[in-house]
Amino acid sequence: MARSVGRICKGFQRLGLLSKQTQLIPFTRVPVGTVRTIVTLPSFLFPQPRDFSLPNPSWGSEMMRMYEHYESQCEVETEGGQKQKGPWRRLPSYNRLLKYATGGVYLSKMIQSKARLFTRNIRNPGAAFEYVLFVNKEEQKCVCILQAGHLLEGPPGHVHGGAIATMIDTVTGTHATLLSGPVMTANLNINYRSFFLTNPCLVPRPIPLGSTVLLESSLEKKEGRKTFITCRVTSTDGSKLHTETS
Amino acid sequence: MARSVGRICKGFQRLGLLSKQTQLIPFTRVPVGTVRTIVTLPSFLFPQPRDFSLPNPSWGSEMMRMYEHYESQCEVETEGGQKQKGPWRRLPSYNRLLKYATGGVYLSKMIQSKARLFTRNIRNPGAAFEYVLFVNKEEQKCVCILQAGHLLEGPPGHVHGGAIATMIDTVTGTHATLLSGPVMTANLNINYRSFFLTNPCLVPRPIPLGSTVLLESSLEKKEGRKTFITCRVTSTDGSKLHTETS
Repeated sequence: MARSVGRICKGFQRLGLLSKQTQLIPFTRVPVGTVRTIVTLPSFLFPQPRDFSLPNPSWGSEMMRMYEHYESQCEVETEGGQKQKGPWRRLPSYNRLLKYATGGVYLSKMIQSKARLFTRNIRNPGAAFEYVLFVNKEEQKCVCILQAGHLLEGPPGHVHGGAIATMIDTVTGTHATLLSGPVMTANLNINYRSFFLTNPCLVPRPIPLGSTVLLESSLEKKEGRKTFITCRVTSTDGSKLHTETS
Repeated sequence: MARSVGRICKGFQRLGLLSKQTQLIPFTRVPVGTVRTIVTLPSFLFPQPRDFSLPNPSWGSEMMRMYEHYESQCEVETEGGQKQKGPWRRLPSYNRLLKYATGGVYLSKMIQSKARLFTRNIRNPGAAFEYVLFVNKEEQKCVCILQAGHLLEGPPGHVHGGAIATMIDTVTGTHATLLSGPVMTANLNINYRSFFLTNPCLVPRPIPLGSTVLLESSLEKKEGRKTFITCRVTSTDGSKLHTETS
């Protein structure tokens, strides 16, 4: 196998497809001054995973406006004109957490290699979940800007309750992991259209397909190994409350 | 437009693609005995919507075994050898509830025409949600057999919490609609891996990708316009409890 890979690499070198980098490696186990040649494999063999948190042409004007609002607060200028880290940080997002699952024998190799993150399993940009997460360490907050695509339908023309629950689970799960290390959701309590529950005269507020909403997650309390997080789903200007979760 | 359709039909007739049916129509506004020729358009012009609740080759042996268990109880034989309705009924399932949404002006025609039900938005059989719902009117119960595909990943090798919430919302929503007419989910309270919460010595029970589970929904109570439904997600033999919901 190693010989075959070597042969493939040599083949690429002959074709001039591989670049060569020469480097001095000051490492204790390697004599100082040893020259090591690093061969960079062509990108189509090991493509960079796509970062889904970056804008794509399917993002609407409202999605872009909200993205730029938080992105501009990730790096701020000091009085001396120098750039430094701002209060917010954008979290990159991929369609797989690990290359192979650690599930054990019950998972076939085929399932393992083809598995994709539920929220990033559709390739067509803008068709399903388009979202980006920003985190504020100081305020212990996490926000998610979500543009809901046409493949998320539940009630005609509106987003499926399960799709909203999926995004809430994603945001609160990510936030809890950043606060307390690796976690799994133990309880998810979602109040859809809470205005309707408190006042039956008010109309329900399901999310129309194609619209952009904001999910804001905040730390409520920590009790031993448990982390309690609340999450509100609102319109981007905050005027309409769609869902509340703890 | 009508003339163009007529021309297309005549074209098909010439090609022998259309079948002709001649029928006597005993209708008051049409003189009795009038002969009307009905032209059946070819199925690729108006294809029958696919019923996703029927088996497909991606269904595993456990999924098929559970399907046949409930399907066999949809029609039973009486002592006289006659067939009659059984206690269970299979619910058909499509990838759209309505052809066009009733959402109003804020939904573009493009989004309306392309919208698909969230749980049926992936065409590749077996890749995402493979499920079928059966309902028992007398016992006021609803069961869903779910085979979780490789595109539903959350924690490596296991089903995303949001995907489980989506199926719970689908089952409880369908059950509530059958019991009380058209409804929308107001509250969804999900306890994932409840064994772990009550006894920290027991291991958590996330659902491995590729496995088949059973969702059982039961009516708890009805209070005015509110319908309270509980739902348990278990292994197909009922020995492992994955999730409890109210």
